[in-house]
Amino acid sequence: AMDVLQRRNPPIQPLLAIVQVLLSKNKMLCCVGTLEILSTLKIVEEVLKLNEDPRVHGIYLHLPSAALTTRVLETLKPEKDIDGISDLNIGRLVRGDLSKGFVSPLASAVLDVLEKHDAPLEGKTVLLVGGEGRVGSALQCLIERSGMVALKNNWNLEILQRQVCGFSVSDHLVHNFLSLNSTGASPCFSLQNMCICSRWIQGQQYRPWRLRSLKLQPLTPVPSDIEISRAQIPKPVNQLAEEVGLLPEELEAYGRSKAKVCLSLLDRLHTQPDGKYVLVAGITPTPLGEGKSTVTIGLVQALSAHLSLNSFACLRQPSQGPTFGVKGGAAGGGYAQVIPMEEFNLHLTGDIHAITAANNLVAAAIDARMLHEATQSDKALFNRLVPSVNGVRKFSPIQFSRLQRLGIDKTNPASLTPEEVTSFVRLDLDPSKITWQRVVDTNDRFLRKITVGQANTEKGQIRETGFDIAVASEIMAILALADSLEDMKNRLARMVVGTSRSGQPVTTEDLGVSGALTVLMKDAIKPTLMQTLEGTPVFVHAGPFANIAHGNSSVLADKLALKLVGRDGFVVTEAGFGADIGMEKFFNIKCRASGLRPNVVVLVATIRALKMHGGGPNVSAGAPLPKEYIDENLSLVAAGCHSNLKKQIQIAHLFGIPVVVALNVFKTDTQAEIDLVCEIAKGCGASDAVPCNHWAQGGRGSIKLAQAVNEAASRPSNFQFLYNIEMPIADKIRTIAQKVYGADDIELSPAAKDKIDYYNQQGYGLLPICMAKTHLSLSHMPDKKGAPTGFVLPIRDVRASIGAGFIYPLVGTMSTMPGLPTRPCFYDIDLDPVTGEITGLF
Amino acid sequence: AMDVLQRRNPPIQPLLAIVQVLLSKNKMLCCVGTLEILSTLKIVEEVLKLNEDPRVHGIYLHLPSAALTTRVLETLKPEKDIDGISDLNIGRLVRGDLSKGFVSPLASAVLDVLEKHDAPLEGKTVLLVGGEGRVGSALQCLIERSGMVALKNNWNLEILQRQVCGFSVSDHLVHNFLSLNSTGASPCFSLQNMCICSRWIQGQQYRPWRLRSLKLQPLTPVPSDIEISRAQIPKPVNQLAEEVGLLPEELEAYGRSKAKVCLSLLDRLHTQPDGKYVLVAGITPTPLGEGKSTVTIGLVQALSAHLSLNSFACLRQPSQGPTFGVKGGAAGGGYAQVIPMEEFNLHLTGDIHAITAANNLVAAAIDARMLHEATQSDKALFNRLVPSVNGVRKFSPIQFSRLQRLGIDKTNPASLTPEEVTSFVRLDLDPSKITWQRVVDTNDRFLRKITVGQANTEKGQIRETGFDIAVASEIMAILALADSLEDMKNRLARMVVGTSRSGQPVTTEDLGVSGALTVLMKDAIKPTLMQTLEGTPVFVHAGPFANIAHGNSSVLADKLALKLVGRDGFVVTEAGFGADIGMEKFFNIKCRASGLRPNVVVLVATIRALKMHGGGPNVSAGAPLPKEYIDENLSLVAAGCHSNLKKQIQIAHLFGIPVVVALNVFKTDTQAEIDLVCEIAKGCGASDAVPCNHWAQGGRGSIKLAQAVNEAASRPSNFQFLYNIEMPIADKIRTIAQKVYGADDIELSPAAKDKIDYYNQQGYGLLPICMAKTHLSLSHMPDKKGAPTGFVLPIRDVRASIGAGFIYPLVGTMSTMPGLPTRPCFYDIDLDPVTGEITGLF
Repeated sequence: AMDVLQRRNPPIQPLLAIVQVLLSKNKMLCCVGTLEILSTLKIVEEVLKLNEDPRVHGIYLHLPSAALTTRVLETLKPEKDIDGISDLNIGRLVRGDLSKGFVSPLASAVLDVLEKHDAPLEGKTVLLVGGEGRVGSALQCLIERSGMVALKNNWNLEILQRQVCGFSVSDHLVHNFLSLNSTGASPCFSLQNMCICSRWIQGQQYRPWRLRSLKLQPLTPVPSDIEISRAQIPKPVNQLAEEVGLLPEELEAYGRSKAKVCLSLLDRLHTQPDGKYVLVAGITPTPLGEGKSTVTIGLVQALSAHLSLNSFACLRQPSQGPTFGVKGGAAGGGYAQVIPMEEFNLHLTGDIHAITAANNLVAAAIDARMLHEATQSDKALFNRLVPSVNGVRKFSPIQFSRLQRLGIDKTNPASLTPEEVTSFVRLDLDPSKITWQRVVDTNDRFLRKITVGQANTEKGQIRETGFDIAVASEIMAILALADSLEDMKNRLARMVVGTSRSGQPVTTEDLGVSGALTVLMKDAIKPTLMQTLEGTPVFVHAGPFANIAHGNSSVLADKLALKLVGRDGFVVTEAGFGADIGMEKFFNIKCRASGLRPNVVVLVATIRALKMHGGGPNVSAGAPLPKEYIDENLSLVAAGCHSNLKKQIQIAHLFGIPVVVALNVFKTDTQAEIDLVCEIAKGCGASDAVPCNHWAQGGRGSIKLAQAVNEAASRPSNFQFLYNIEMPIADKIRTIAQKVYGADDIELSPAAKDKIDYYNQQGYGLLPICMAKTHLSLSHMPDKKGAPTGFVLPIRDVRASIGAGFIYPLVGTMSTMPGLPTRPCFYDIDLDPVTGEITGLF
Repeated sequence: AMDVLQRRNPPIQPLLAIVQVLLSKNKMLCCVGTLEILSTLKIVEEVLKLNEDPRVHGIYLHLPSAALTTRVLETLKPEKDIDGISDLNIGRLVRGDLSKGFVSPLASAVLDVLEKHDAPLEGKTVLLVGGEGRVGSALQCLIERSGMVALKNNWNLEILQRQVCGFSVSDHLVHNFLSLNSTGASPCFSLQNMCICSRWIQGQQYRPWRLRSLKLQPLTPVPSDIEISRAQIPKPVNQLAEEVGLLPEELEAYGRSKAKVCLSLLDRLHTQPDGKYVLVAGITPTPLGEGKSTVTIGLVQALSAHLSLNSFACLRQPSQGPTFGVKGGAAGGGYAQVIPMEEFNLHLTGDIHAITAANNLVAAAIDARMLHEATQSDKALFNRLVPSVNGVRKFSPIQFSRLQRLGIDKTNPASLTPEEVTSFVRLDLDPSKITWQRVVDTNDRFLRKITVGQANTEKGQIRETGFDIAVASEIMAILALADSLEDMKNRLARMVVGTSRSGQPVTTEDLGVSGALTVLMKDAIKPTLMQTLEGTPVFVHAGPFANIAHGNSSVLADKLALKLVGRDGFVVTEAGFGADIGMEKFFNIKCRASGLRPNVVVLVATIRALKMHGGGPNVSAGAPLPKEYIDENLSLVAAGCHSNLKKQIQIAHLFGIPVVVALNVFKTDTQAEIDLVCEIAKGCGASDAVPCNHWAQGGRGSIKLAQAVNEAASRPSNFQFLYNIEMPIADKIRTIAQKVYGADDIELSPAAKDKIDYYNQQGYGLLPICMAKTHLSLSHMPDKKGAPTGFVLPIRDVRASIGAGFIYPLVGTMSTMPGLPTRPCFYDIDLDPVTGEITGLF
């Protein structure tokens, strides 16, 4: 049987061997041999170590029963208690549930012997003499479960006499029983090994979900987001994790409602087929809002909680800048939210803080290095960079990487020529060509352009620079695109922070800081598990902006989720802003990096936004909404559909993926308007177009969308990239401009041309393109709604994110640091110090 | 019995009432009445809610047994399973352990009835007819535990006949049993209530520790800190928490080795007497190091793991700036460390990141507000600050606070006079008098002095400002001094960020941001639980610097720890730098804020540092150590003891607290040197003076210190503050300068005098003093070692931290932003992407 198991699960074989080795090397076993009296504390200590050791799959306590104290038994992890002696396993056996716990192999063996007897066991009486303790209890249970009657006797002769004379007991049985029992607690190793082996393999394999959804009772009118969030008690996150087939060791809880998930899951389930992959994108955004996040959450609520189809939403972590600035929370809204929404919107599990720390360590290293190079001789620099420690000087591994790039293959610092010393110690950064900015996760507009180094201590090395919002950091893009810890480490080391005076790119590895960056980011690489209002699972991970970065949730979260949902499940992931930027980058950058291929695109639209694209008047914050957006206006709706919506559907079709239009319904929308949008959308080639009411109704309001997505995902798709990666940089930019934005051509500034030449020369020509373009129009002109044509796209400059792995052309001026309005959201945000409840976070 | 329990525990009474109300209102009970068939999912959902509801202390499932499915039973929390039906509780009963779990009240009642029978039960046989299920199993166990024999019969008549004719069974017993059994699972409410009540009260009370220490096997030579840390497997943090008497609901795990502890613990244990309170301080620091953190950790390892005296170390969270800069880790060192040391040194549970986010939100609010005031009319500002939402304009609560300070008691925005509108909307901050700085937790020297607002979008509103290291933020000082969530909230609202052109202080509440600050800091206020290398508990919380701030670990961590250790336990807390600053501020600021009184001061010294204070030569990093510090030199040692050590002992005695000198032994120290220090220290009035070898030996090396501390703590102390809080500001400063530093007098600059007048006028005169003075000398001159005399202390300027609650005079120039050296620590820090192991963090 062991052979069969191993044949079926070849990768597990070596792990089993380790178990056996560990068991026989176990200190416990030796101690019994030497009859050493073990203190409970010492045993507990050993058991705790074995409990926590991931290499140990089962623990057998070969100890005298006096040593099996309450404390020892309470310490033993039931999942590793292959001898079935822990309270939980005994309790399961008493209840008659043998599916989950371990049963004493000795007791099972006794039953096996009894069953080999010719006569049927049903109705027989078994006398258990001296069957005290855990094995006795287990045996008694098994006997009773077999329809026999168990009589216990703890060596009381008088009672024994009465008991024995009352019945006719087969000598054979008694003999067998007593002889087995007299062996005491001797281990039945073959049984136990089978037990560990099969249980462990079972534990490691894909587990069907046992999702328990949380019930919603939507109120009318719909309360505030935080009121809705607070009214629902989330499941403990370890409970949710178990429901979706995660192992306890794959989870790192952060409080009760958030947990990081370990990447080892990808190894465990590597043979498991991926689920279906759905991208949620939108029409071009307007100030009236589209609701991509609520559609994403409403869709998974509908799939998981109402259609019983496994599904995971993969969302980006929101920046705290907008949370306290103008936008408020980003956890969805109404009855389609991630809960607890305040946990989602605040520090979460610290990933953006880690990015900020890593990004700013690079910045501090750049300026400090320039100061030190400006004020020290080559020799002084070399002596400090490669110091003598107890008389020995040696390069650190990170310095060897720099030597290698410089073509110096020496290992002894003393053997470097003066020229080699110079090239090693001098990064010789050109202060005017430093592209690295500092970051802060706050809307702090006064940091957009600053002068640093003005204190006397910096000796006049002042320079102009600026801060970006933290989510715009290249490190955020790397977090979103990395597909393993090793990949992240390599990308972090490749980041180019500026150029030397001789025109060479200078990397974070040249600065000696890339290892520290990996250390700072080691936990951030694990996606965070949370849940929707209906108790369905959500990954929150990474959060790049789609205008100035690639704007997609992380590759790793998607990959983990695709394994977890199983072949017929769905992963719904979100791309920022309109399909022309978020979705285009999803396909051309993210899918290229991940190797994943989507099955369906959900394109989100609202009647109001379509009216604006159809020529409706501008709106301004605070002013009353023009009547066009409140009253029925079919001609504006139709015009919007035939321009922006149609164009965005066509863009998705460029990549060969079917489109389902999700019309996010507002209470002012009329049935005629809704019908019109759905009709035109289908006319434009959408596989389906359906109205959604998740905001007011939760998943129940998105059932039609879920059905449409399920239907579209079952059709074959024919994915293709928009451009070949080997095309020249300018051609790649032109392809996007013409085919996606509808431009006639592009116009490269002289600066842009120079940069393209420089990147080609440095070997960066084979990277995909990440356009930095306004999200407010398909064109570069924010006020051009609909589907503009007849324009030439101006490329002001071109930059490169070598670690993230893309070239980014700047189309016009893009702000990388939002500002605070006169009355920021924070005016309403407060906390009741008695209840701990937050108010005003919406 | 209930009465007795309630009399003994008066504060618990209302909680019990809630339990009963909830139980009778429980939806389960209604459902059974209507015979509605409940789906397992619905039951599981209800049980999960009740499991998580802190108001519910017990769950009784009054359901038909068919409804008690595996899933339902697995869902039920054993701690709330007052009916004893969960597997764990059944298992405990089978094993015969009634100390912890719940036993079916019905089964217990049957036993009670049996025990009322005249004849002794021992040896009797009980026939259980139809006693299936959980109650039956429980009854069987109880019967067997009473020395009787249990026979089970599941209504099988043939067997029953055989069974009954074999014995003489009392009619009375059978009758009683059957009649009880026939009531099925009817609740024994009074028993259950007693059960919940006593179990709950027991659970809420102080629990003696069951600390399991981790064994150390120190190696020679001592390996690197990270190697030592990694060689020890830490206990799971929830295990540690249970060992020291924390309840599961008081813990929020952050991964496996760190957890935040809820402040509700203070309410639960408010009647519990505090343990003993020990402060670790040091002689004046030198570049040769003293090792206060290692002494603190070694001391608690000795107390808890070797003397079995409960103890907690309370440490400050290290800044990541020095970790990646010049200092390296701060988790102790050698065999006296907090583990895992990389978790301690990196993001921990995000508190410093939260402080950074909060601090910088204030900064962004200040500059944005100045811009908006500069570019908008009063009316425009008012319309934006108090906008019309759906036609209604109203002030937010935070705006009412500002109106109140302005003496305007109107509630209708429309009723404000134009003058009132002006004073409400214009904070009118004087750009030259803004004291608030931005912060970053990185050693970024180029941010010491910067110019912000240089982008065109800021319309020329440029101004000079700077960044401090994050731990220097006033918010850090508040975190360290707050003694509740409410206190923190009030302090955050009181922070003064600058002065208006008319000289009025402007607060964070005026900016409307104080509620958001509290929200950002809501988790940071909970201390983080970790452990030492020997598995003893540690709180890590707050981390102000002792030169530029008050430099002590948090009041809340100390208070929680003092409750947890119990009356005879020890809390060892740490004050930064030399006793002249860290300890002085501990007494005069922290103890004033907390109301706590220390029992003992441990003063840490090293032979090397004493030699430098005694006149030994200067040392410089990288250069070989002068021979004075390597060879025996009794005269330098004696001179150092008679100057700096003696003075620091005297300072502690000013406050009436006994001093134990801990001599942190290095391998170059000779026995004669060690003996000399101990002899002189005792001669100077120290209660005791002992050498410590924790670095090489762990707690075992500090047993003598632990004994000395235990002895000193048993003596009465006579605590007094150094100055009366009502003294004029200048007199308080002078008192510290003369009595603590040994100055002849102070000299106030004109700026300092003006500020003192201003603070007196604003009503800040009654705050304690937090001197910002170099830590490298008792005087203001860093190169004056020993105990300088004959100097006048110059007070360059005076500032105020109104939220933190102190006035801080600036003695000379104090840097609030460290820099990076030419070769920062990060050169050696790396991570193996396969094993996940960190290297180079020492």
